[in-house]
Amino acid sequence: MPSQPAIDALTPDELAAEHERLSATYAELVAKGLSLDLTRGKPAPEQLDLSNALLALPGDSYRDGTGLDTRNYGGLAGLPELRAIFAELLNVPVDNLLAGNNASLEIMHDLVVLGLLHGTPDSERPWSQEPAVKFLAPSPGYDRHFAISESFGIETVPVPLHHDGPDMDVVRALVADDPAVKGMWTVPTYSNPTGAVYSEDVTRALMSMPAAAPDFRVVWDNAYAVHSLVEDCAPAHDVLGIAAEAGNPNRPLVLASTSKITFAGAGVSFFGASAQNIAWYQEHHGKKSIGPDKVNQLRHLRFFGDADGVRAHMARHREILAPKFARVLEILDDRLGGAGVARWTEPEGGYFVSLDVVPGTARRVVRLAKEAGISLTAAGSAFPSGTDPQDTNIRLAPSFPSLDDVATSMDGVATCVLLAAVEARLGR
Amino acid sequence: MPSQPAIDALTPDELAAEHERLSATYAELVAKGLSLDLTRGKPAPEQLDLSNALLALPGDSYRDGTGLDTRNYGGLAGLPELRAIFAELLNVPVDNLLAGNNASLEIMHDLVVLGLLHGTPDSERPWSQEPAVKFLAPSPGYDRHFAISESFGIETVPVPLHHDGPDMDVVRALVADDPAVKGMWTVPTYSNPTGAVYSEDVTRALMSMPAAAPDFRVVWDNAYAVHSLVEDCAPAHDVLGIAAEAGNPNRPLVLASTSKITFAGAGVSFFGASAQNIAWYQEHHGKKSIGPDKVNQLRHLRFFGDADGVRAHMARHREILAPKFARVLEILDDRLGGAGVARWTEPEGGYFVSLDVVPGTARRVVRLAKEAGISLTAAGSAFPSGTDPQDTNIRLAPSFPSLDDVATSMDGVATCVLLAAVEARLGR
Repeated sequence: MPSQPAIDALTPDELAAEHERLSATYAELVAKGLSLDLTRGKPAPEQLDLSNALLALPGDSYRDGTGLDTRNYGGLAGLPELRAIFAELLNVPVDNLLAGNNASLEIMHDLVVLGLLHGTPDSERPWSQEPAVKFLAPSPGYDRHFAISESFGIETVPVPLHHDGPDMDVVRALVADDPAVKGMWTVPTYSNPTGAVYSEDVTRALMSMPAAAPDFRVVWDNAYAVHSLVEDCAPAHDVLGIAAEAGNPNRPLVLASTSKITFAGAGVSFFGASAQNIAWYQEHHGKKSIGPDKVNQLRHLRFFGDADGVRAHMARHREILAPKFARVLEILDDRLGGAGVARWTEPEGGYFVSLDVVPGTARRVVRLAKEAGISLTAAGSAFPSGTDPQDTNIRLAPSFPSLDDVATSMDGVATCVLLAAVEARLGR
Repeated sequence: MPSQPAIDALTPDELAAEHERLSATYAELVAKGLSLDLTRGKPAPEQLDLSNALLALPGDSYRDGTGLDTRNYGGLAGLPELRAIFAELLNVPVDNLLAGNNASLEIMHDLVVLGLLHGTPDSERPWSQEPAVKFLAPSPGYDRHFAISESFGIETVPVPLHHDGPDMDVVRALVADDPAVKGMWTVPTYSNPTGAVYSEDVTRALMSMPAAAPDFRVVWDNAYAVHSLVEDCAPAHDVLGIAAEAGNPNRPLVLASTSKITFAGAGVSFFGASAQNIAWYQEHHGKKSIGPDKVNQLRHLRFFGDADGVRAHMARHREILAPKFARVLEILDDRLGGAGVARWTEPEGGYFVSLDVVPGTARRVVRLAKEAGISLTAAGSAFPSGTDPQDTNIRLAPSFPSLDDVATSMDGVATCVLLAAVEARLGR
């Protein structure tokens, strides 16, 4: 039996009493003088410790299996052996996968820049010469994706995101008729922040649907491809193969990195695409780079050994992360389960829980939490231009704090959610 | 006494005999079946070995002096302690210097992209919306600089380069009247490929001259700031201070890296500029990066210790490089000294010797060398659009081959230069 009564069922007197009770609970919370942070999807120190062997690697060797001296210039594609490991994990042919520096975000940014300044191999002209450019943004989604397109004045159009991917009716309608729609942001596996996993059907639909723009691209940011919270990880779809089969080989741009596998600031990024896209990227990327940090790639190669090495490593991350997520869900269920004022995702992977509170109260909840010393990601962050039209969504990031801090934070957040809901009901 | 007679002084008969003699020498050269490479300014394996301690660093520590966990996200500016070391070496205040990933070329590329897509803090509009954009290119210069501007359709205008910097009369005239001139590429210390060192007078002139474009920028690529071949390294001018004093604080964009200090592919880059430029760069760069590879920065910090650590390290590079450069000059002097068919630079630092052969024969020399198994950088590479109007300049890069290979290559190159000169004189 949930301990919290359904707010909607309360009489006016009961509601007033509930408000008084929650206000007292909130005052106690504020009095604790907490300083907790659930804002960003950062790995916890204990997770980073799992990769500390990297700090002394590659040790006394500096050649990869091909005999390449990783210390010198060159090797724009990255080390073949490391690419092979992630080719297997990402379900991308190794010839279609490049290994880069420490951030796939940089590659995504550069892909948009290349589209704007040069155009893609399928573009009639650089996007910057188009009267308008639009990117679709399944929402709630990843704020840093949206910030890239928005920073260049690209209209970033929200589309609803379901548990198995974006609402394809909406996507199809937007893409089929409007040649200004040049791109779409996706996080196909354990999506940030809802944990949505794109089904194979949705993947096929995205890759095969007609597009008015011949140079329509889907940024397939598989940032959490191996980041499951359960035993069986969602499979990586053969998105390049599916797209090629559908006659749209150049549509998907696959991204991934080891940022949440090894070191968040010092990992290796990956970019996968059709041969034509890879050649296009390499041609332009070769103007700015004489090659990625291959010593860091060798370091990762030695550390992982093979794809099973990555899988075993991710199991150790899971041992640290899964209890934190379980605790979040337990507290949400316990404190809000019967109140009828919130819904939340129960992700099987990734770094976030997406919490929907009473519409119109998300910003109030975040403010209440802030005043109680609990930092939450700004309400609306997961939507284009940072605006949640319903003011309902809050992204919870439980990875970085300790288990105890996660519990303390979430208990506080639940109080804020309830108080804001009662305030709203009272018309305050 | 030079062994080679002055070609111009030969009678027709003597010239024919000389052609026969050189043709025979060249045939012997081809018969050797060499496979040597003087194309690119890559550090030799022995130079890379000097930094092999990096391969096991930072070892068991991952925090910098501020207590920052370098393994995690964040720290967009780079590690303060490493920035302080290079602030001293580059003569830039530490607050005005950022540390980045492994390539200053990437930063230069991105600075041009930011100018094109956003405009600088002093721009009326993004450069991509200007009717024309031009960059000045002191030539011979660095091919990868010119490739960046050219790749975006920026007209890259050659200006003559003297031993103490570009021809300021030409530069002043181009910059003063034409608001399309938005930028200028420079390598102020031990310039690629001539070894030119910008004097303080030229530096002051560049920073103070009137510019028609309020957003005129000088890319001050101090790639060889500490890379001297002699005991006393040329000083790094206080270019930010000089520019600020002249009322043009935002004009210089200072770049540097450890690519030719530690590992060419796995070093740290630096970007220095006015506070306003730094804020502008950080604002936009923050859209593509959550921070540079700080573990690699910590690795370098531990390795160097301080600025004197860098200086001592560069002295060890000099011990390897100086004999190779001495050998190049010795052979040029010995084989070409009296022939009157070539001039060359005698650099006190950097990675190149710039060789001017009989006008109209540089491409022929490179082809002759190629056919003899000696790869030289393509003739014209050091000029915008790869076109040397005089077809006279050849860039020699003696760093990577062994001392013996440098000698063998240069002896072969000298033969090719002489043969091409005699051919030209014979009208062939």
